[in-house]
Amino acid sequence: MDGGNDTREQAYAADIASIRQAQLRIEPYIHRTPVLSSENLNKLSKKKLFFKSECFQKGGAFKMRGACNAIFSLDDDRAARGVLTHSSGNHAAALALAAKLRGIPAYIIIPNNAPQCKVENVKRHGGQVIPCEPTMQSRELVAGRVQEETGAVLVHPYNDRHIISGQGTVALELLDQVPEIDTIIVPISGGGLISGVALAAKAINPSIRILAAEPSGADDVAQSKAAGEIITLAEVNTIADGLRSTLGSLTWPVVRDLVDDVITVEDEEIVEAMRLCYEILKVAVEPSGAIGLAAVLSDKFRTSPAWESSHNIGIVLSGGNLDLSVLWESLR
Amino acid sequence: MDGGNDTREQAYAADIASIRQAQLRIEPYIHRTPVLSSENLNKLSKKKLFFKSECFQKGGAFKMRGACNAIFSLDDDRAARGVLTHSSGNHAAALALAAKLRGIPAYIIIPNNAPQCKVENVKRHGGQVIPCEPTMQSRELVAGRVQEETGAVLVHPYNDRHIISGQGTVALELLDQVPEIDTIIVPISGGGLISGVALAAKAINPSIRILAAEPSGADDVAQSKAAGEIITLAEVNTIADGLRSTLGSLTWPVVRDLVDDVITVEDEEIVEAMRLCYEILKVAVEPSGAIGLAAVLSDKFRTSPAWESSHNIGIVLSGGNLDLSVLWESLR
Repeated sequence: MDGGNDTREQAYAADIASIRQAQLRIEPYIHRTPVLSSENLNKLSKKKLFFKSECFQKGGAFKMRGACNAIFSLDDDRAARGVLTHSSGNHAAALALAAKLRGIPAYIIIPNNAPQCKVENVKRHGGQVIPCEPTMQSRELVAGRVQEETGAVLVHPYNDRHIISGQGTVALELLDQVPEIDTIIVPISGGGLISGVALAAKAINPSIRILAAEPSGADDVAQSKAAGEIITLAEVNTIADGLRSTLGSLTWPVVRDLVDDVITVEDEEIVEAMRLCYEILKVAVEPSGAIGLAAVLSDKFRTSPAWESSHNIGIVLSGGNLDLSVLWESLR
Repeated sequence: MDGGNDTREQAYAADIASIRQAQLRIEPYIHRTPVLSSENLNKLSKKKLFFKSECFQKGGAFKMRGACNAIFSLDDDRAARGVLTHSSGNHAAALALAAKLRGIPAYIIIPNNAPQCKVENVKRHGGQVIPCEPTMQSRELVAGRVQEETGAVLVHPYNDRHIISGQGTVALELLDQVPEIDTIIVPISGGGLISGVALAAKAINPSIRILAAEPSGADDVAQSKAAGEIITLAEVNTIADGLRSTLGSLTWPVVRDLVDDVITVEDEEIVEAMRLCYEILKVAVEPSGAIGLAAVLSDKFRTSPAWESSHNIGIVLSGGNLDLSVLWESLR
């Protein structure tokens, strides 16, 4: 499952040393987020649950960890030319924020059909928004042009060693806060977060189980694990807008080797988990952020091999960026 | 404002010793809640803000502290007969939950026009709901009957020494977590929370400023402070359903002497503060819980005598129990 095979470990994009380095590097810039628990949710799940609440991270999601590690790893000369990414989500906002902390420009390429609230979010964090057509071709064309003009460093949202190491600091903190954890459930999309978490956690304690939580409408990871190779879906359909990416060349080997199982859940289960997060935990999560709770409460988990031996379960509430206008309108 | 005047201190319903006792007594039953901060909100307020997040307290509000202190102070004989209160809000749920922890009955008298979600909340926490007509007369009649039949101890939501001492533990924790705090803003209704906080904080550091945050549609405390006596309003009108009570005989002297100022805010300011809590802090608060943030962002505060010398401000996010059905309906 993991373990003493050094050759293999060294083949991964990150390891416990690079994750510990990341922790030292990013410590001044991020929040050590609290771990929450609830007896009601323990009762409901029949397990002890520990919610690592990355919603409270700067920028509202764990993405700030990887972004800071990537940006503060650059030498001064490279950094001065700025950073670049194409994403309209939490990675874009985090990269903009981390760049601001280092005092360098962040160029964020966003398709011109992206929701205005996402564009505003990137701008609010100091990012320079550069619009492109909503096609892969236009995106790459624009990215190429910006790189040529500025010399900015492209920071991929997940298929990047520094990003993976940065996200792995979630597990270092969690296992420091709750050493008795035997299972960690992590939302999966491109696999940056779960790769970092798996590499850190299994290095600390190889018997820790790592489970991925994935929407059934975007279950490319479950399919990839079953097929033994990266599967890309023609179409995805899920409320969890943060979980629509596909695995990358650096994340796939970790997911293949170190993720013990994938639990797929329906969108209705995600919304119900969100409700429990807001109404019981009092944490404002986005759909992608609530999927770990959905997984632990699912029939899929109860009938899985992991059920019996999972007692103290860490759940990463990965982010909380969500448009709640409907709520404010109803209150006004 | 407070201080070395022992006679006066002894006249209050609680003191630093009773609050420290409460802390020891309730520690096994409550959460030590995290303190959150946000650079965005610091920038917006031009202050350093520290959010003591009692939304994450068991039962979803600070009320669990007082309820546990009251219930675990009872000797076994008295406790065995159970406890009683008339409230449909957070105190009722907390009392039910604390009673369950001690294994004793909790009788909760609720007017038959109370929202069903509040009734369910009390039941979920193990309380025995006893309906009454929605009049003061019926409530007291029913309470008298239940006390006669059961011998249960009436635990008032705020006008009770043990409740005040229990709520004061919020300040002990907060000042331990963030010793540099110079000002604490506390929502005010019956005054139990702010009395405990003021007595604890001023005993630890007499120069700490205590500000009450009150809805302008239920500004009986501002009026009482101005008049020098308890004023009761004929009518209250605010979205903050937890802030509609009036001061009691035990809380008024503390509020009169130790609360430095009252900041009244409009309901629109409360909703805007809620929005910031959800969207920036990612904490699900109820209107009463968000009023401290509304106060710190208000023009009233910016033009108040406290503005200049308040730098590190503790804000108690008092609770997070709110019906969010409109949100779930929109997502489904």
